[in-house]
Amino acid sequence: MPLDLPALLERIPPADADSIQFATMRHAVLAKPAGSLGQIEAVGIRLAGTTRRVPPPVPQRPMLLVAAGDHGVHAEGVTPWPQEITAMMTGVIAGGRAASTVLAAGFGVDWLVLDVGVAGDVPVNDAPEADRPNTAGAPAESRLRDVRVVSGTRNLRVEDALTPEEAMAAITAGHDAAADLIEAGCDLLVLGDMGIANTTASAALIAAFTGQPATVVTGRGTGIDDPTLALKTQVVADALDRIGPDRDALGILAGVGGAEQAALAGAILAACARRVPVLLDGVITNAAALVAHALAPNVADHLIAGHLSVEPGAAVALAHLGLTPLLDLDLRLGEGTGALLAVPLVQGAARVLGQMASLADLGID
Amino acid sequence: MPLDLPALLERIPPADADSIQFATMRHAVLAKPAGSLGQIEAVGIRLAGTTRRVPPPVPQRPMLLVAAGDHGVHAEGVTPWPQEITAMMTGVIAGGRAASTVLAAGFGVDWLVLDVGVAGDVPVNDAPEADRPNTAGAPAESRLRDVRVVSGTRNLRVEDALTPEEAMAAITAGHDAAADLIEAGCDLLVLGDMGIANTTASAALIAAFTGQPATVVTGRGTGIDDPTLALKTQVVADALDRIGPDRDALGILAGVGGAEQAALAGAILAACARRVPVLLDGVITNAAALVAHALAPNVADHLIAGHLSVEPGAAVALAHLGLTPLLDLDLRLGEGTGALLAVPLVQGAARVLGQMASLADLGID
Repeated sequence: MPLDLPALLERIPPADADSIQFATMRHAVLAKPAGSLGQIEAVGIRLAGTTRRVPPPVPQRPMLLVAAGDHGVHAEGVTPWPQEITAMMTGVIAGGRAASTVLAAGFGVDWLVLDVGVAGDVPVNDAPEADRPNTAGAPAESRLRDVRVVSGTRNLRVEDALTPEEAMAAITAGHDAAADLIEAGCDLLVLGDMGIANTTASAALIAAFTGQPATVVTGRGTGIDDPTLALKTQVVADALDRIGPDRDALGILAGVGGAEQAALAGAILAACARRVPVLLDGVITNAAALVAHALAPNVADHLIAGHLSVEPGAAVALAHLGLTPLLDLDLRLGEGTGALLAVPLVQGAARVLGQMASLADLGID
Repeated sequence: MPLDLPALLERIPPADADSIQFATMRHAVLAKPAGSLGQIEAVGIRLAGTTRRVPPPVPQRPMLLVAAGDHGVHAEGVTPWPQEITAMMTGVIAGGRAASTVLAAGFGVDWLVLDVGVAGDVPVNDAPEADRPNTAGAPAESRLRDVRVVSGTRNLRVEDALTPEEAMAAITAGHDAAADLIEAGCDLLVLGDMGIANTTASAALIAAFTGQPATVVTGRGTGIDDPTLALKTQVVADALDRIGPDRDALGILAGVGGAEQAALAGAILAACARRVPVLLDGVITNAAALVAHALAPNVADHLIAGHLSVEPGAAVALAHLGLTPLLDLDLRLGEGTGALLAVPLVQGAARVLGQMASLADLGID
């Protein structure tokens, strides 16, 4: 069914002010010095604002949604990795033996991988059944969904990466996938990405949405040398010059984005409209959040920044969204790894707010 | 049985160099860019060095050991909290409704609370059975162990806080408790503390072991105003002047430490001697680690810093130990809260090292 984007954007609420206030008051009367749990308190209060419940329910079924896509800008030489890695790792993630899905299985988090823009065939690299580290034991095929809208984007340095129709189709694919997960019980949407060269597209998106120059937001991705970084920065600068300053959010997304960023933006919109909190990973999901936020500013109220990526655009994007990352572990992998590592912290934040003794319980005024 | 400390110290090994090397090599051939999991890779390698297994086993039975004690220096007015809070919160922690034990229950971590130096009676504040948030459903009594060696220390500003015999008895109590937990299956020892005024004792310990002045290591604890901070800093400076620069580790501990820091130091020694990794919480456990490290420098190889406390002495102590904290969430509660929040990260670090696909698995040279 085609997505009615304007209607969806209308449905995205701000955080519930009463719930924020009640949760803040509750934290003040628990058996600990006020504020002594720092950011953990802030996360619990944020969950209350999104879910409109105090105490907020402990997320029992976090689910990881990984969007994968390839990028025409790869032809510029912005990364030493061959493009084929995207398809291969997309299969490995689905099969449960990538860093992200090993972490997910350990934390009891189920996952779904969206091929929304991969260039080649995705081989399903299933783990041997005996040591398949996922919770349900399901084969990888069921965790890989082919919703491909493009087989790799066009080269964003010289032309729009996506047509408006492709961008909208990718948003829709991400939206529908997140809606399905939520329908299946997901109460915390954990986002991840896979896509060789996608830090280039993310840098361009972050620059376009925040007004920062390419030099500030462009980084080394998973690891490039100085000449490649200089080239990558110039590619981002050229892309920004090409699209100019006057495009709307969808125009920027189509111009310099990727199918996976578009899908992740759609997933964010779907979750926020349903009052399901969203846990962001690194710079690719941060860029996707900027797209969603530009479409519906209330989105920022429902996001939790799982970690701060090493990639410099991440800090720029999170500052623009007003988010403080929970973790800072020098991660630069993506796939949802940083978001997954923050899942237990989010669950813990809900637990302390809901289960701790209050001072009144202890007979203290 | 009396603890043979010299024999124990002899038994504490350094990290196993071969295991460190093999784990490092394994990380380099997993299906991700080398180094892209940042500190998570470092933790996995550290676990290998301690356990001498590659990949290191995923900690399946982390256990929390909380040591509680009171402090004669409370009489100086270094904190606005009444001393009675220590006994009360010790009971709440044991009963499972404190921040730390709510988090522990959520993460499947069992706990034991040691009353090693509380001043008053510890009331057992058990949670109602219906919502008792611990994994085994056991009543609080079984999670509180009375090994009291002193009912509050003496005032460290004016005299030694502990006699040498009391200090040694507290070390022994912590050692024996940790040994019991490890005997019961604990494969990751998670440390916590409870004790009103114990950041004062910790600041003095950190200053004495690192050579930093009171002004650098003394902080606001769970929250004090500027005049109280000035007083507290002077108290620490006076204590350091009193004990002078020539004491050995046990002399420093008896002079300005607390029963809970001594017990935690003993617990660290017990775990390290058994090649069980130790997860540190905030500044009190950091100070205890300095005691253990001064007695047996190999200890530092087996410690993992769960988080960086707001308290300034924490960063000083961790730097002295060569440790990088995993979390930095503006926590200043203690009880093991910051260490517990890091448990899933440590488990995740072991999982990625053991369960991820290698490049060879994917047919890549």
